Amino acid sequence: MEYSSKLLENAVYEMSQLPGIGKRTALRLVLHLLKQPEERTAFLAGSLMKLREEINFCSSCHNISDTALCEICANPKRDESLVCVVEDIRDVMAIENTSQYQGLYHVLGGKISPMEGVGPQDLNIVSLVTKVKMGKVKELIFALSSTMEGDTTNFYIYKQLEGTDITTSTIARGISVGDELEYADEVTLGRSILNRVPFESSIKAN
Amino acid sequence: MEYSSKLLENAVYEMSQLPGIGKRTALRLVLHLLKQPEERTAFLAGSLMKLREEINFCSSCHNISDTALCEICANPKRDESLVCVVEDIRDVMAIENTSQYQGLYHVLGGKISPMEGVGPQDLNIVSLVTKVKMGKVKELIFALSSTMEGDTTNFYIYKQLEGTDITTSTIARGISVGDELEYADEVTLGRSILNRVPFESSIKAN
Repeated sequence: MEYSSKLLENAVYEMSQLPGIGKRTALRLVLHLLKQPEERTAFLAGSLMKLREEINFCSSCHNISDTALCEICANPKRDESLVCVVEDIRDVMAIENTSQYQGLYHVLGGKISPMEGVGPQDLNIVSLVTKVKMGKVKELIFALSSTMEGDTTNFYIYKQLEGTDITTSTIARGISVGDELEYADEVTLGRSILNRVPFESSIKAN
Repeated sequence: MEYSSKLLENAVYEMSQLPGIGKRTALRLVLHLLKQPEERTAFLAGSLMKLREEINFCSSCHNISDTALCEICANPKRDESLVCVVEDIRDVMAIENTSQYQGLYHVLGGKISPMEGVGPQDLNIVSLVTKVKMGKVKELIFALSSTMEGDTTNFYIYKQLEGTDITTSTIARGISVGDELEYADEVTLGRSILNRVPFESSIKAN
C-alpha cells in the first residue's frame, strides 16, 4: 500500500505491530483516531506511556500493582499457606472472578517454551522456590494451561521443590459445567472418570 | 472485570475505545506492550501523537498529506479536468492501487447520514462546488459506496452543480471479475444487464 503521508504510514506501521492487527485494521484504527477530538489520541498515548513507565509488579506475587505489595498479598484475610501458580495476570483476574479462592497467587510471567526461547531463568521461578523454602506455604496449586509447555513448567517447578514437605496439586480437568458428554474430547472425558469425586462433595459445590 | 492496577485499567479503557476492540482484546494488547521493550510503546504513542498534532490535509483535494498540496494534486501529469469524488483516504488508496486512473480526487470525509448526524456542512462539499465553478473540471466521477447514504450524497452534490455544464458519472456497478452469475444478487445482476457495454470495449480492457 502507498500512503499519501509519511506520518500516517508511521502510525499505521506502529499500530500494525500489535498482535492480531494487520495493516488494514491499523489504518482503520488510525483514521478513526483522526476523526475523534485530539484529546482521545492524547489520552490513549498518555495512558500507554504512563503504564509502561510507571509499571510496578508486586514484590511477592509479581502481579501488576500500583503499590509495592499488591492488594491480594496485602490482604490479611487471605490464606497465605495456599499459593496458586499462574501464567499471567489475566489468569489471576479469571480466578478472582469466581470468588472461590481465598489464597495467594504467584505470577510466573509465561511458560517454559524452548520453541519460543523462554527458559526457566526468564520466569519468576527462583522467587517462588525461595518463598516456599521460607516455610509459610503449605500447598501449591498449579493452574497453568494443560499444554506441553504448561506441563513442562509444572514439572520443572515440582523438581525444584524436591526435599521440601510442600503439598502440590493441579486444578481439576474435566467436563465443563453444562457441557454434553457426547461432544467432549476423549482425553478430557477419560481424565474426568479417572479423577471422579465423591457425589456428596459435588452436591456441596452447587 | 477488576484490575489490580489503576494505570492498567486506564490503558485498557483507552484502548477499548477504538472501534472493534473490546475489553479483553484491549487487555491482551496492553499486556503485549508490557512484554515488549519500552521503545515499542514510545514509538506507538509518539507516532500517533505526531500524526494527530501535525496532520495536514491537501488544500485542494482534502487527502491526508505532509505537504500543502498532496503529491497527486501537485503532479503535472495528472489530468486536472477529471475529478473523482470519494468518501475517504482509503478509497483514494484503493483506486490508486488499480493504476487505471490518471485524474485528481476530492475527499468528502464522509457521507450525508441523518442517522449519524452528518449533514452536508460536515463534508468538503462547498470546496468541491467552488472548484467545479472555477471551470477547469470537465467531468466528476462519483465513487461513493452504493448505499442510501452514498446515493443521497451523490444527488445532493449533483443538485448543487445545477447550472454548470459539467459532466457527471458514477463508477460502474456490475458482476465482479471472476464471479459466478448464479451467486450474484438480483440488483447487481439487473444493473449489469441494463448498463451493458459494447463487447469491443470489454476486449480492450483486458
